[in-house]
This record gives sequence, structure tokens and C-alpha cells, in this order.
Amino acid sequence: MIGELDRLFLRRAVELAERGLHSTTPNPRVGCVIVRDGRVIGRGWHVRSGEAHAEVNAIADAGNDVEGATVYVSLEPCCHTGLQPPCTEALIRGRVRRVVGAMQDPDPRVAGKGYRALRAAGIVVDSVELPEAFQINAGFVKRLTVGRPLVRIKLAVSLDGRTAMASGESQWITSAEARADVQAWRARSCAIVTGIGTVLSDDPRLNVRDAAFDGGGGIRQPMIAVADTRGRTPAAARIFNAGARVVIVTGGRAPACHPHAEIVRQAGATVDLAELLSWLAGEGCNEVLVEAGATVAGTFLRDDLWDEAVIYLAPKLLGNEARPMADLTIERLASAVRGTIRDIKAVGADLRVVLAREL
Amino acid sequence: MIGELDRLFLRRAVELAERGLHSTTPNPRVGCVIVRDGRVIGRGWHVRSGEAHAEVNAIADAGNDVEGATVYVSLEPCCHTGLQPPCTEALIRGRVRRVVGAMQDPDPRVAGKGYRALRAAGIVVDSVELPEAFQINAGFVKRLTVGRPLVRIKLAVSLDGRTAMASGESQWITSAEARADVQAWRARSCAIVTGIGTVLSDDPRLNVRDAAFDGGGGIRQPMIAVADTRGRTPAAARIFNAGARVVIVTGGRAPACHPHAEIVRQAGATVDLAELLSWLAGEGCNEVLVEAGATVAGTFLRDDLWDEAVIYLAPKLLGNEARPMADLTIERLASAVRGTIRDIKAVGADLRVVLAREL
Repeated sequence: MIGELDRLFLRRAVELAERGLHSTTPNPRVGCVIVRDGRVIGRGWHVRSGEAHAEVNAIADAGNDVEGATVYVSLEPCCHTGLQPPCTEALIRGRVRRVVGAMQDPDPRVAGKGYRALRAAGIVVDSVELPEAFQINAGFVKRLTVGRPLVRIKLAVSLDGRTAMASGESQWITSAEARADVQAWRARSCAIVTGIGTVLSDDPRLNVRDAAFDGGGGIRQPMIAVADTRGRTPAAARIFNAGARVVIVTGGRAPACHPHAEIVRQAGATVDLAELLSWLAGEGCNEVLVEAGATVAGTFLRDDLWDEAVIYLAPKLLGNEARPMADLTIERLASAVRGTIRDIKAVGADLRVVLAREL
Repeated sequence: MIGELDRLFLRRAVELAERGLHSTTPNPRVGCVIVRDGRVIGRGWHVRSGEAHAEVNAIADAGNDVEGATVYVSLEPCCHTGLQPPCTEALIRGRVRRVVGAMQDPDPRVAGKGYRALRAAGIVVDSVELPEAFQINAGFVKRLTVGRPLVRIKLAVSLDGRTAMASGESQWITSAEARADVQAWRARSCAIVTGIGTVLSDDPRLNVRDAAFDGGGGIRQPMIAVADTRGRTPAAARIFNAGARVVIVTGGRAPACHPHAEIVRQAGATVDLAELLSWLAGEGCNEVLVEAGATVAGTFLRDDLWDEAVIYLAPKLLGNEARPMADLTIERLASAVRGTIRDIKAVGADLRVVLAREL
């Protein structure tokens, strides 16, 4: 049985999990709160893959004295040995009385077995499915269940849905504040996907530059993946100075090497974005941010390869000859790309809309 | 001197003025609060042109005993005889001690003379310029100072700025809630401007149907003005069943009469929208709502003939072959139509953005 107070502590555990938003990849973000006699005696969260898990950090925070306590975890404790020993063992050894979990671990090696191991040791286990707990790890869940990362498309357009004038003139449609806001989306992503068109025309860096995302060990730079059918990415492109791992995804007829990047050569004549997503999942990518032009963005949208779109709308109209936000040919209204507005926010002079794909 | 308490009562007067939002035209919306010994003793607002003014209603509400009181008015009291006697006289006769006004009347027959008449009678007058007080009568002010109504353009588009598929298929882009929300913008308008293209393709009614806007004397229907160069509006169009005054604005070569509508024939070959706006101002229109297609909306936007755009954004993308929101050819980014986001609101599944023209 879960009570109101339990939910409160679970939400607190999720808040702690959020501290790992920019650093836990490829692991999920997990937080833990330990309570005894109505008082919080330990708090912990998972910071970085290979380092201690949330439960172990919380037990340490409680001075290793957690006997009889209730442990709130944002995700089911693990029961397998990875880079760290199983958290279930630490909880059993600590003789806690009860464990309350906000979400079952989708990892097939856990997936309920963590809860069962605790119950088998005589610990009371209560579990719920808290939407906030799911939300923060939606990419991790998708990778483990679908074999693809969560795909978020960043778009910056005028209120009439245009990204540039017919001449190509485009800098800047949105405000400096909107451009700064993009840093947060990059920082939580495992990879940035772009296209060769964007690299050639804008030469962006696509890295995280905001010191706010340095959790102490330096800024973690998401991988940069360039969809580049013919392998035309210039050796002098600024993405190579971004401190990130750069991968160039080509078609089968492109050169097999590049002076500064790994080449991922697909068999087909052009880049298959669905295949790229599977590859990224294999590399441990939970969340991917697409920062690309109309061609690549259009393909993700058209082929239902997206989960969220973060759309910055500048308060201007560029007119009907200006360039559209996506290469997207739709004949019937019934085939429109549909979403649900999840969030609206003013960012500088612009508007930010987070659209979730309609399932 | 104006104190915090004065501002509080002035805001209350503006709130009372808002009760006349849908009915005072062509008069401004005015509210009045009368306070004595820190207690509100009278409230009033102007309901309908030809009927009593806010001050007179508030004095009556106070049982005609306002001696020594302070009177808060959202707009300078009038000092001329129109359909009603001057409010200054009623205040002087009531022997009030002080009058506090939230905005000077832009009517050249008043414009400070109201305040002066009160002062000449020994009444203390304090005046400020309260933005809320201006906002509610922005159309009235524009008509009296610029000779044109405030122009508000309603647009309903997808997030990529499209109104219909290339085939013309369009019903419905936005949600029922968004369409219902439009009723409020119509109800506060003095006229709806549309184009012959919209009449021929959609045959809309363009009237106020929501009973919420019936202040007791039946719903006031805004005038409908159709920009119709060649006078092609069908006699069977539904705008004629809307209970509204319908005006067809034509070029000089169109027929001079219509079975159900007044014809306003302009001299040129096509309809001049700036000239139409001046004509509407002459008819006492303070606020005009443009509900039209890409041609008419595009002209208002291109020629800087607009003040606000109310844009309903549906959470879908219709693709780059779908129809643009406005016929608007812009070559350089510097010539983009620019605005400031004044308000953002979720309406049903859609998003409503109120854009104010950048001055």
C-alpha cells in the first residue's frame, strides 16, 4: 500500500534523480531517499556510469545505518552485477524494512527481479508507476524496449513555419535566449544528429558550452552523428573542435575513412535514419537530439521516427516564399503529422513549444 | 498625488469598464468606483451608447449621496453634451471632493477639458495613465487619434504555418475549443472584415452565437464588411442570415447595388483596405477583426495595417506543399513582419498566441 507521504518521498527521489540528467548516460537517472521514524536520514543519486548507484550513495549518506528504514527509489533496484554490485544486496545487507519504487526497471536483467529478490529477503516492497519517474528515463526505457533512443527534434522557425528566406538568409530567426536554451537539450542528450547540409551551410559546433552543465568532472559532450551519404564532411568542420566523439554515417558507396571521425558505413545508397537510430541505441544512446535542416528533420517526421519536437517560434512572419521547416510532402489532411502540446514557455522574445508525437 | 490604494480602486474601475466590453461601441468602455471613508459606496459602468455613463450609474448606485466622496474613473469624465449630459456636471452637482482618473479622454471635445472643468469647480483631480485603462480602449483611442480602428487579424494554422492542404482540404485544422474562443474576439469587435474568397469557399456566418455575450438586450452583432472587388457576394451567402449589418466593399467597376447588403463602392479598380479602415472608423468602429484568407490577411500584414494577430496554432504539421497563412512575399529577413508576443494560452489541443505589431 502506497500512501500520500510515500508519494511525496518518491517525488523527492525523482528530483534527486534529475541531478544526474546530464551525466548518467548510458545508465538511467536514479534517485533515492531513505526515511526512518518519519525523518529523511539519507539521500543519494546516480551520477555517472561506472560509479556508485543511487541506493548505495543514499546508504552512505545515512552513515551506513539504515536498519528498519524505508527506502524510496525512483527506479527498481538492480539485482545484477554490472560495473557495480547489485543494489538489492546492499539493501538486504543494510536490513531495511521496506522499499518503495516509482517504476519497474525495463532492463530484462532486472524487470521485476529486483523487487522479487528484496521480497525473498523479507523486505516489504511496494511499487507504483509514477509518471514523473517514467518521464525522466523515457529514452532509457525506449532503448531497452524498442531498441531505439528517444528522438527529439529541435526546430527554430518563424510563426509562419519558416527557417530562412528563399535566398538562404537565416541568421538569426530566433533570439539569443532561445539559442542558449538549446544548450539544455543538448546537455541531456547522448547524441546530436545532424545532416551534411547543415554542416556545409552553417558549420555549427553542436556542443555544450554552458558551464552550468559541468557537474564537476567537465562538461560531457554528446556524440555528434552526421548523416552524410557521400562522406563529404570537411576535415575542417567545427564539429571536430567540439570535444565530442564524431561519427559520420554514410551510404555504402562513400569513402571508408575520415581523418577526424569514425565512419559508420551503411549498406544502402543513402543513409537510413531508422538504421542509424538502432546503431545509436547499440552505442548506449538514450536520448538523441536532431539539429538538422529540412531534409533530415523532414525524414524523421515523415517516417514517424520522432518522439518530441522542441519548436522555437520567433514572433515574425517570413512570408510564403521563405523556406519551410521540413521537407514534408503530405497530400491529405488525415496524413498530417500530429502531436500533443506538452509544454509552452516564453524564451526571450520567442515561444518554445514542446510537441509530443501523437501515439 | 496617487497612492497605492488609489491604484487599487482605479484597477477596480477598469474591471467594471470591462463589463461593457461587448456592448459600449462606438463609445469607450468606462467604469467608475465611488469611495467615502475608505468604503466603496457606488459602482457603475457604461453599458450601451445612448444610455447613462459610468459616473452617473455609480452616483445612482450610491443612492445619489456622494458628497465629499472620491470618484475613481477609468477614463476622464466627459464635459460635452452628446446623447447624455456631461458627467462633469453630475460630479460637481454631487459635491464630490476628489476625482481620480486612469486615462485622459482622447476625444478632442474632452482631452483634458473634463479634468479642468472639475478643478474649476474646486474638486481635487488626480490623473495617471494606467496601462490597463488604455488597453481596454486601444481601439477607441486609435479611431479618435489616427482615424482608423484597431485591427486584429485572426489566423488558424498548423505549427508549420499552413491553413489547408494544397487541394484546399482544410476542415478543421484547429480544435472546437479554438473555434469557440473566436466568439469572444468577434463579440468585442465592431466589425468583421473578410474577403470574397472566404465567402465563396467557406460560406461562414461570421456572427456571435455564444449566449455568454448576450448582456440582456440580445447579442450585439458586429458589422460584416466583405472586400469584394467585383461585387460577387452571392445573395444566398450565410453572412446575410447572421443578424448583422452587411457591407460589401467593391471597386469602382462593380454593380452599385445588392439585394441584401449596402454597397460601399471605392473609386479604384480593386478594394483599398486602408480606405476601408478609414470608412469603418467613420462608422464608429473601434475594433475590427479580420477573418479572411491568405490574400486579405496578407495585405493587412504586408501594408502594416494591423495592430494585433490572434494566431491559433494546431499541434500538427501539414507539410511544405500545404497553403501558407498569408500571401506575403518577403525578400530580405530585414523586411520580415515583426511582432511581440503579448499572450500565450492553451486552448483545447491548440495554442493561442497574441502577437502585437512591433512599432
